[in-house]
Amino acid sequence: MYRTLSYPAVERFVRTVFETHGYGTADAAAIADVILRADLYGIESHGIQRLMRYHRALAVTKTAHVDAEPEIVRETPVSAVVDAHDALGQLAAIRAMRLAIAKAKAHGIGMVAVRGSSHFGIAGYYTRMAVEEDLLGVCTTNSEPILVPTFARTAMIGSNPLAIGMPADPTPFLFDAATTVVPRGKLEVYAKRGESIPSGWAIDEQGDVCTDPRCVVDAILARRGGGILPLGGAGEAMSGHKGYGLGLVCDLLSAGLSGGPYSDHKKDDPSRSNTSHFFQAVDYGLFGDKAEIRARFSAFLAELRATPRAAGQPRVWIHGEKELESETRRRAEGIPVNEKTFAELQSIAADLGLDAEPCLRETRKAVSR
Amino acid sequence: MYRTLSYPAVERFVRTVFETHGYGTADAAAIADVILRADLYGIESHGIQRLMRYHRALAVTKTAHVDAEPEIVRETPVSAVVDAHDALGQLAAIRAMRLAIAKAKAHGIGMVAVRGSSHFGIAGYYTRMAVEEDLLGVCTTNSEPILVPTFARTAMIGSNPLAIGMPADPTPFLFDAATTVVPRGKLEVYAKRGESIPSGWAIDEQGDVCTDPRCVVDAILARRGGGILPLGGAGEAMSGHKGYGLGLVCDLLSAGLSGGPYSDHKKDDPSRSNTSHFFQAVDYGLFGDKAEIRARFSAFLAELRATPRAAGQPRVWIHGEKELESETRRRAEGIPVNEKTFAELQSIAADLGLDAEPCLRETRKAVSR
Repeated sequence: MYRTLSYPAVERFVRTVFETHGYGTADAAAIADVILRADLYGIESHGIQRLMRYHRALAVTKTAHVDAEPEIVRETPVSAVVDAHDALGQLAAIRAMRLAIAKAKAHGIGMVAVRGSSHFGIAGYYTRMAVEEDLLGVCTTNSEPILVPTFARTAMIGSNPLAIGMPADPTPFLFDAATTVVPRGKLEVYAKRGESIPSGWAIDEQGDVCTDPRCVVDAILARRGGGILPLGGAGEAMSGHKGYGLGLVCDLLSAGLSGGPYSDHKKDDPSRSNTSHFFQAVDYGLFGDKAEIRARFSAFLAELRATPRAAGQPRVWIHGEKELESETRRRAEGIPVNEKTFAELQSIAADLGLDAEPCLRETRKAVSR
Repeated sequence: MYRTLSYPAVERFVRTVFETHGYGTADAAAIADVILRADLYGIESHGIQRLMRYHRALAVTKTAHVDAEPEIVRETPVSAVVDAHDALGQLAAIRAMRLAIAKAKAHGIGMVAVRGSSHFGIAGYYTRMAVEEDLLGVCTTNSEPILVPTFARTAMIGSNPLAIGMPADPTPFLFDAATTVVPRGKLEVYAKRGESIPSGWAIDEQGDVCTDPRCVVDAILARRGGGILPLGGAGEAMSGHKGYGLGLVCDLLSAGLSGGPYSDHKKDDPSRSNTSHFFQAVDYGLFGDKAEIRARFSAFLAELRATPRAAGQPRVWIHGEKELESETRRRAEGIPVNEKTFAELQSIAADLGLDAEPCLRETRKAVSR
């Protein structure tokens, strides 16, 4: 069951949670914006259903520190390495992408690798920052190992999303995809709903197909084996080795370049999250007239939208359209929140001595989704 | 049926074919090296089975010109745009990747977009050039439309491979993957062998599953509809929209940045191939001590190799290992060539008045593969 919360109210609540943890107004608003952007986009897995995880990182496991100051430890005109010193991922990531953007504006290209960070939410948030500056943006991160390499039976690589954004009209192109078939958060959402996952998403500790999301997530967290399959699925028949390779590339760009631990060593020190990210901004004006490049890309996207549809399909989508349309709708109509997530929000409010009532007031009747 | 040809003999034959078309010794050797690298790697789809296509491009359709001189039409310290002026893709690509490498050595990063080129063989050839200079390499290209966007039923985007290479020990990481489930060349190979393709690779003009490779390739060439599915397969259940998005990104990087036509417009002018490519080289020393970055990456790859295997699987592979091991073996033992491809080689020799006998002499009995 889901209830719908008004966006301004829930935004105020999430911001207040982080202010209560000790963040200044601007930082708390920035963190809330990243988290809730996922809910606005319709990506429940990375939204407020993860608030408990961030709350626990600050209050219980202390793997993220409110007073951490990300530091540039190496820099050239086109690149930098940032040590986030255990800052919340959202804040480290926003600063790193800003740095990449500044370098792209000054020198055409900026690449920034970050180590010592924590979970940063949706990778696509940061590529959209570049897009809003009329730049091409790239972002990836590593994460707890959930991807089982082709022909293996233990998770070794993170969900390692790859996001790429490019300005276009009428709406930007915003690609953001885990290199696994699905991210772990999607299994969390299925588990919260009490639903089975499709065959072909995950395997258990013995390497057999598993459709119980709780079982897979528990095995991943306990590192007992099993995990989520790479994009392309099991084996090589449908090219699962390609998803495996892309996940590995994302680990190289984030952990490999920044000097942070690869996905399978993130938890060697349980007191830290030790997440690594990678950000890139490119002034596509390096390659020609920006208006012309943008117009030609937009025209290609228009042709894709207009191509004949498969039987029974209402629409051929461009990456980002679903999310931007959902954002417009949900800003006005509210964000659906699962009952279990809602209970977590109440528990966080109780932990922090907040009066959640005015912020979490239900705006619509509970509905099954 | 396959026969095995000695590598030096077949290399001499392919080189002679291009010399006879008018190329100088060095250029002919370079083209032959790219084409035969695919056969050495075990990627039959992109090897000598495509020689007829290149021969026809030079001699019959004249979509590639022997005397073409690729030209740098725009340049900054970190980027360039090259107009290949209808050169063979291999020569345009080698020059463009050399330029990206030089920029990476001088300024840390080099990005080169190429337009007006033609089919360049395997993308992984060029990333290996960067790897051999101890740089991180990226390469992509667009190609004839074969990828059917999610929920559509007509091919609109090329196979658009993405290759990424990184130095490592004992062998480099060499990822090279079409963003479709499989490249078109793989269907050509199945068609030559008279075999069906697995369900889940391609759809026909009505949007239904099709396992006849000839039927799919013919429909693609005639642009009647149908085509190959994106990595992740049909619909969104197994994330086929991710392969579709990656294919689109590759078209943007190659055609979008260079100013060449997007995949679905490559053939608007049938007298040209009008293929676009993208090359990137990065000095990973921008981000830290190169020896340390390389050693840490190599250690992660070693952990992946050593991870427990799924039941019945002999090995967990790193991308590039199969290809490099195949290369060593085939340089010594020879290259397997399908009978139909062998007949094409004889026909090319006859066209050019070459005595193919000494070069194409069979080194092993014909075997079924």
